[in-house]
Amino acid sequence: MPRSADAVVLVSGGLDSCVTLARAFVDCHGVALLHATYGQRTAARERASFDAIADHYSVPLELRLVLDLSFLGSMGGSALTDARVPVPEGLPGKGVPTTYVPFRNGLLLSAAVSWAEVLEADSVWIGVVEEDGSGYPDCRESFLAAFESAARLGSRTGESMRVLRPLVGLRKSEIVRLGFELHAPLPLTWSCYRSTESACGRCESCILRLRGFEEAGVADPIRYDDDGTGHGV
Amino acid sequence: MPRSADAVVLVSGGLDSCVTLARAFVDCHGVALLHATYGQRTAARERASFDAIADHYSVPLELRLVLDLSFLGSMGGSALTDARVPVPEGLPGKGVPTTYVPFRNGLLLSAAVSWAEVLEADSVWIGVVEEDGSGYPDCRESFLAAFESAARLGSRTGESMRVLRPLVGLRKSEIVRLGFELHAPLPLTWSCYRSTESACGRCESCILRLRGFEEAGVADPIRYDDDGTGHGV
Repeated sequence: MPRSADAVVLVSGGLDSCVTLARAFVDCHGVALLHATYGQRTAARERASFDAIADHYSVPLELRLVLDLSFLGSMGGSALTDARVPVPEGLPGKGVPTTYVPFRNGLLLSAAVSWAEVLEADSVWIGVVEEDGSGYPDCRESFLAAFESAARLGSRTGESMRVLRPLVGLRKSEIVRLGFELHAPLPLTWSCYRSTESACGRCESCILRLRGFEEAGVADPIRYDDDGTGHGV
Repeated sequence: MPRSADAVVLVSGGLDSCVTLARAFVDCHGVALLHATYGQRTAARERASFDAIADHYSVPLELRLVLDLSFLGSMGGSALTDARVPVPEGLPGKGVPTTYVPFRNGLLLSAAVSWAEVLEADSVWIGVVEEDGSGYPDCRESFLAAFESAARLGSRTGESMRVLRPLVGLRKSEIVRLGFELHAPLPLTWSCYRSTESACGRCESCILRLRGFEEAGVADPIRYDDDGTGHGV
């Protein structure tokens, strides 16, 4: 693995960011990995997945950065960071779900652009998904295109800075298939919003993930509560 | 002062953000103040100015937030956060100066939008100055317009979210005059990049500030090294 990077990849430890990294790893000379902790319920488990995925790709320690965005948690306003707001079960309904963390992707992308400027990298990568996603406003393609314009105009790098979102138009089942094609280390990923030992199988994130594997016709390699399918006993 | 806010104002403790706050205080029902520390040399002095300005406007404690963005410092890449890079003297030359902190305003604005969403505020205010500024890419009007589009598309608030930059097209002397008109507490502000007791009078930021007061035909109320004019003895 090279000691310099031309790409900064946001890696939460979940399925989507892992597949995004697998794509960047193929397309770029060197990758730098950015992970954020912001007081979310499953922060320690996501960090463990981040470390394992970074090890899998032999990314040098100086090209890994963990940001403390705990002020996002202290601001409140999301079921992911506020223990008083329950994490909902089932698929998301209409409107913005309670698990939305306000403008989190704006913050993460800004931090990635900052680091890209320092590293003289010319792209940042984010694993957001619009179509099959959960209604978060900061996962829309229109937001990402506008943010890319802002990043080009507001950084020293200028026109050469790209904000890449290779999954934004894919369905979850297509992401699972792409992950297999690219040999992404899917058993190392973590998507559950609630649990940290075995995945709950019932929160929005687990249900979207399980549906993706089911539609792709392959088994999800991570462990779920109860009967191992995520559907409970 | 109301206990709720319709505006989030970024307040560094410097002249420009103080005048921006004075404007927002007149135009809005309630203001919330966001300050960031990121490992810059004069962080403690800027924080003291922030506190004094917030007290001046009687902003309740729950509407003040201090963000720790120290990862910006650990990323390096700027004379403001890296003790090995000297802070230059004199007016900035061509190109992006070494005091540029990569994409800092993207980060600050993203944090402000996050908090605005939580508070149900519909505007964020930033005291950036393009014309008479120091060549930072993230102070350009074009960047701010693009960022505003991104903020609208990427937040729950949508079209009602505004990114206000009332000083962006002003010269420093016009900002000084506006500050006097709006009774902004200019003696409480701090602009120097290097010193924390009396201002050095020689760094880029001091020189731009002193020139602004001189062109406005008024005395700068803060204390400078040496002979008190910022020009040395």
